[in-house]
Amino acid sequence: MADAPATRRSHRSRTAILTATTELIGEVPYAKLTVEAIAARAGVGKQTIYRWWPSKGAVVFEAMLESDTGPEGLALPDTGDIATDLRALLRGSVAALTEPRSEAFLRAMSVEIQQDAELAATYRERLLLPQRAAVTTRLAAAIEAGELRPDLDFELAIDLLLGPIQTRWSLGLGGLTPAYADAVLAATLRCLRA
Amino acid sequence: MADAPATRRSHRSRTAILTATTELIGEVPYAKLTVEAIAARAGVGKQTIYRWWPSKGAVVFEAMLESDTGPEGLALPDTGDIATDLRALLRGSVAALTEPRSEAFLRAMSVEIQQDAELAATYRERLLLPQRAAVTTRLAAAIEAGELRPDLDFELAIDLLLGPIQTRWSLGLGGLTPAYADAVLAATLRCLRA
Repeated sequence: MADAPATRRSHRSRTAILTATTELIGEVPYAKLTVEAIAARAGVGKQTIYRWWPSKGAVVFEAMLESDTGPEGLALPDTGDIATDLRALLRGSVAALTEPRSEAFLRAMSVEIQQDAELAATYRERLLLPQRAAVTTRLAAAIEAGELRPDLDFELAIDLLLGPIQTRWSLGLGGLTPAYADAVLAATLRCLRA
Repeated sequence: MADAPATRRSHRSRTAILTATTELIGEVPYAKLTVEAIAARAGVGKQTIYRWWPSKGAVVFEAMLESDTGPEGLALPDTGDIATDLRALLRGSVAALTEPRSEAFLRAMSVEIQQDAELAATYRERLLLPQRAAVTTRLAAAIEAGELRPDLDFELAIDLLLGPIQTRWSLGLGGLTPAYADAVLAATLRCLRA
């Protein structure tokens, strides 16, 4: 236990860095957000950040994961009605993509994963694939319950559900409302129903 | 006509800049591509570039529009069979998103439009909206011909057709093959058919 005070200091620094990042992501355009600014706000040296994270994008991703403002959570409700549960998923996705702080996080990650293959792989493994696995679990239960076609392709089904919303957002096409989420769901369910 | 030689010089510089950009986009990671490097390759001064374009992203967009390697062209074929024509659209989209140079252009634009609202607006007006208008025209003809439901929402239909492919690409989920394009089409047509 000799290193306990150092560990506590580390923990405090880590928390300060992630809090500073979460604050700054809402204040500064992402291109102007620097590791120096995060370090200054957190009251640590830049080297402390680079000791734990390889890049600005990696710190931002960690802050996003801890901020509770990431995209829809990992567990999907199971009310027994697949339309109800997918409606919550799609509306939650619209909410995450339009709420200012979570949108700022997601735009930042969208920029980073186009350019940083290592971070893109981490993003997929720690966030995207677990999210998709949670949706797959819920779809499988709906097939079991006879609500969806038994020959459903899970990957394609998830792409049809989330792709339209995600694409309007990433291309800046607007129109991301709960009503739009419901329209995507209604159309997609016509393809997925038993 | 006193300014004709100057106009010719301008035209040569412009072509040299766009050619240099198209070459460099395939050679250099986008974050490392600079206006200086484009100017050097084109044999012009940096100020010549900034006289015509406000930013690196704006030059890259112009080069993309002129390189013929942008996403699917603006005119959609009309063979009389909507499935055939949408298959060409979706497979063309997969091809544009996976062919190295056009993918490099599209990743660059994807990064820029998250961060540059003015360029995002130009991108929408000069590329996205005309592309979507061309698809809308083809869908309207298919409704007229009784191939698609008359109450079809064009915007939503386009999102369902192109969103899954676009999203797999922007999230780096892979699997972008002609077979995947055909699977998206088959599923979506089930929702859109009359």
